[in-house]
Amino acid sequence: MIRVQVEIRLRKGVADPEGDNVTKALKLLGFSGVRGVHSAKRFLLDLDTKDAKAAKRDVEEMCRKLLANPVIHDYAISLVK
Amino acid sequence: MIRVQVEIRLRKGVADPEGDNVTKALKLLGFSGVRGVHSAKRFLLDLDTKDAKAAKRDVEEMCRKLLANPVIHDYAISLVK
Repeated sequence: MIRVQVEIRLRKGVADPEGDNVTKALKLLGFSGVRGVHSAKRFLLDLDTKDAKAAKRDVEEMCRKLLANPVIHDYAISLVK
Repeated sequence: MIRVQVEIRLRKGVADPEGDNVTKALKLLGFSGVRGVHSAKRFLLDLDTKDAKAAKRDVEEMCRKLLANPVIHDYAISLVK
């Protein structure tokens, strides 16, 4: 089994309302030193294969087809040891 | 400025409906080798300080007060270079 991590971030310039709201909430809680917060999503995928290269290629396709929205998202794929 | 990353995961044994649904959807799309998917959340926090230790301590407190729910979440805090 191979475990692959996918991190799905918002592209530069795309609004991040979740991050903005977390920033506001933290300031209201008294954390005045918070300049900004960026939110992202992470998936760990367990794949039934031993071929790391094929696993990465599959996950790349999963990102294109389901996990990420190419209009607003960037993603990074990495193997987990 | 210091950038701190917080990863918020579901505790072991806590149901992960998002991960389960992603697994189902990937299988429906033809990715039959997917054994399981675990979802998590990541925040990057930009803090107005130069003291890495204080920054980590602050973020620990932010997790307890706002970012994580201790009943269902585990979190990991790390500095970003």
